[in-house]
Amino acid sequence: MAKELTPRAENYSQWYNDLVVKADLAEQSAVRGCMVIKPYGYSIWEKMQHELDRRFKETGHVNAYFPLLIPKSFLSREAKHVEGFAKECAVVTHYRLKVNDEGNAVVVDPEAKLEEELIVRPTSETIIWNTYKNWIKSWRDLPILCNQWANVMRWEMRTRPFLRTAEFLWQEGHTAHETYEEAEAEAQRMLNVYADFAENVMAVPVVKGVKSETERFAGAVDTYTIEALMQDGKALQSGTSHFLGQNFAKAFGAQFQNRNGELEYVWATSWGVSTRLIGALIMAHSDDNGLVLPPNLAPIQVVIVPIFKGEEQLKQISEKLAPVIAELKQLGISVKYDDADTKKPGWKFAEYELKGVPVRLAMGARDMENGTIEVARRDTLTKETKSLDGIATYIKDLLADIQKNIFQKALDYRKQNIKTVDTYEEFKKEIEKGGFILAHWDGTAETEAKIKEETKATIRCIPFDSYVDGDKEPGKCMVTGKPSKCRVLFARAY
Amino acid sequence: MAKELTPRAENYSQWYNDLVVKADLAEQSAVRGCMVIKPYGYSIWEKMQHELDRRFKETGHVNAYFPLLIPKSFLSREAKHVEGFAKECAVVTHYRLKVNDEGNAVVVDPEAKLEEELIVRPTSETIIWNTYKNWIKSWRDLPILCNQWANVMRWEMRTRPFLRTAEFLWQEGHTAHETYEEAEAEAQRMLNVYADFAENVMAVPVVKGVKSETERFAGAVDTYTIEALMQDGKALQSGTSHFLGQNFAKAFGAQFQNRNGELEYVWATSWGVSTRLIGALIMAHSDDNGLVLPPNLAPIQVVIVPIFKGEEQLKQISEKLAPVIAELKQLGISVKYDDADTKKPGWKFAEYELKGVPVRLAMGARDMENGTIEVARRDTLTKETKSLDGIATYIKDLLADIQKNIFQKALDYRKQNIKTVDTYEEFKKEIEKGGFILAHWDGTAETEAKIKEETKATIRCIPFDSYVDGDKEPGKCMVTGKPSKCRVLFARAY
Repeated sequence: MAKELTPRAENYSQWYNDLVVKADLAEQSAVRGCMVIKPYGYSIWEKMQHELDRRFKETGHVNAYFPLLIPKSFLSREAKHVEGFAKECAVVTHYRLKVNDEGNAVVVDPEAKLEEELIVRPTSETIIWNTYKNWIKSWRDLPILCNQWANVMRWEMRTRPFLRTAEFLWQEGHTAHETYEEAEAEAQRMLNVYADFAENVMAVPVVKGVKSETERFAGAVDTYTIEALMQDGKALQSGTSHFLGQNFAKAFGAQFQNRNGELEYVWATSWGVSTRLIGALIMAHSDDNGLVLPPNLAPIQVVIVPIFKGEEQLKQISEKLAPVIAELKQLGISVKYDDADTKKPGWKFAEYELKGVPVRLAMGARDMENGTIEVARRDTLTKETKSLDGIATYIKDLLADIQKNIFQKALDYRKQNIKTVDTYEEFKKEIEKGGFILAHWDGTAETEAKIKEETKATIRCIPFDSYVDGDKEPGKCMVTGKPSKCRVLFARAY
Repeated sequence: MAKELTPRAENYSQWYNDLVVKADLAEQSAVRGCMVIKPYGYSIWEKMQHELDRRFKETGHVNAYFPLLIPKSFLSREAKHVEGFAKECAVVTHYRLKVNDEGNAVVVDPEAKLEEELIVRPTSETIIWNTYKNWIKSWRDLPILCNQWANVMRWEMRTRPFLRTAEFLWQEGHTAHETYEEAEAEAQRMLNVYADFAENVMAVPVVKGVKSETERFAGAVDTYTIEALMQDGKALQSGTSHFLGQNFAKAFGAQFQNRNGELEYVWATSWGVSTRLIGALIMAHSDDNGLVLPPNLAPIQVVIVPIFKGEEQLKQISEKLAPVIAELKQLGISVKYDDADTKKPGWKFAEYELKGVPVRLAMGARDMENGTIEVARRDTLTKETKSLDGIATYIKDLLADIQKNIFQKALDYRKQNIKTVDTYEEFKKEIEKGGFILAHWDGTAETEAKIKEETKATIRCIPFDSYVDGDKEPGKCMVTGKPSKCRVLFARAY
């Protein structure tokens, strides 16, 4: 195989970087920390967008678009928001270039300095609430349920393709409500939409929960999260939904007349997922041979490779396969028929394995005579020979089975790697092995900071559901011995 | 009607601005020249995107994503490109903010100055060709047929919603080819895709042609354009497709080994349409009552308004209408049933007229008893009473008819407003009346500049097709009397 990957066991991080590049997902650009998302990678993002957008619309949301640039002063309006987001930002200070005196290059025109600098949005709460305040006069104008598909920038120091890049693509939902209860319910509803998407489309099991105060979104009252476990035992925060209370409404003066005729600040949520999900997808399922894509997100679900000698044989095989291809397409399956004669079948097999195509079909001269076809699964790397009779229906069922199997495999892995510990000593030992750890914590930021400093582990969330018997029962903090209401989820994280 | 528009005859420009705001399409943001695209406006853009994206994919293109920010030095690589695009740009000079000494605001951190400034992309040829050069080694790597959906910025001095904004949304196709002929054919193919979209989806007739050298894209060998005529007699450039020759390949060193084993520079095209099309859509069809949307782009194709007294009557009417709604949806028609009791029917009628909903159905008590329904067309503002029998199929046909009628009306208008003139005196007189003028021109930039200065008219294009008898025959320049190969299309333009 020409495009060999570093094995995961040897260097997981290098395996990931290799895979991103060799499977044609993305590459570094000339701009520090910004990636080029290549067509194959982008087609996975398009599938994600399609599935998410449908879910947003089904839950009553509409799309809109707000400006890329935000006046600098907006960022300091919400006291906590500024701490979290007004730091590592791209700052626009000028609006014109001119040709230099030598006439061979462009320079920034010093006369075209902006009165107030503009920030490339790191997130859009501020500009959106500055807009919403004019849309909302009365409870009759509520709720507002908007989503935006956009690019954002955060000037990260260490970047990795998809996982952490200076510019990334995402969606950000921003909603406005009459009551605390309605906004709170919306934040939870969207977390559930994300969890449904992660598990049923990405085949990635997630733990739903609420963040500790330290890990909360800057400006939120509560941050809900879905946390996934990667194959190297590290957690990846895969989506967050924030109940913002009245914080942004107060910062931007967004008041409305409520049903009792009183002026009240608007209640808000925001929620987002990004191209980071492609990183999660890769790290959750893929192997040393390349990508393993769940059929629900695979740009190509089935590839068909004819194995032939000479044009005449290719023609015969192609004729035999034509009705199969037609039938698969009829069933809504995306099929690629690769009859190129410039590459050998072995090369093609390796290439489609690398690209994570869930099902590969191959037909040679003998198969053609026998009316059979070779069916290879990417997830299990197993092969079988099947009769052409009813093959399309068989493949449709197989794709559903692969989707289920990939999820189950990831779920089994998580089950094996979610442990409870009761002492800090044990915690320090177990955290080195990776995985999720459920442990008691006294609820203070001090203890949380101490644990992070000493073990690099963070509280991923306080889970909503129970994962291990008794994890919802009270206990004593593993560090301080102070009382704890329930176990919380720790891990080292991306 | 609460939301009255300035009539077109009184002030066309004000009518346009009124309509954009009152029909909830867009509004000014806090950032100079940047607009907020509101949900109703954005849903039109989504429909445009959907139709265009499908056409791009059908012609073999794939989507990808390239960085928002471009190193300043890239812009000066292509000699002509720098003149056109490296001027009015948003320039990122710093990457960090910090809290000021008073602790009450953020300021730019002077220590976080970039070594090389970054430009918010005004268009992406430079960053894309800097990427493509690494993708292309041999003729086997060609063609590359990529498109990008993105935001771009051009620091325009005078802005108008959709027509000219500092930030706008667009798609930009960037393709790489083995030969001159293939690239040239691609540029023309995409122009035809745009023309098909404009005429069959937007219902806007367009003139296809090639730009004069003066009006060419900075860095192109040839710029092809589609030009539409607005209701005020001004032209609107609605899409352009550029044959870039080897200019960008040379600027970025993109060479490949051709089929003869020789190193050769890659041939290129780029092509784009933007949210400007929403401006074209509004100005081509709408009237003093509001938007007129072609059914193929209307977010709501049919609105149904029950006219009722009391809940019991509403219930009866709703029951009668339920199968109609179901049948319309079955036929793929987007339907809104507006049974809100907070607004009166008259208010609703005006509101949906303003929003350009192509068909309005209304049912009152008498209609219900008679088994009839009132059908109102937005394009002609006519009403008729129809039997409920077969109403869904009738509406489906009606929508197709409305689509056709809107196009025909715009086409008739253009036919009435496309004239030939032979003398410059006549030209000066006719240009004041608006419309397209076909006239002879000597082909020089000097004459073109003189005409523009004296009349504010520009050469929109040298049309491919003939619009008036003899317009493809040679003649004499109306200004200088020098020979001219054929008539060219002039207009004042947006």
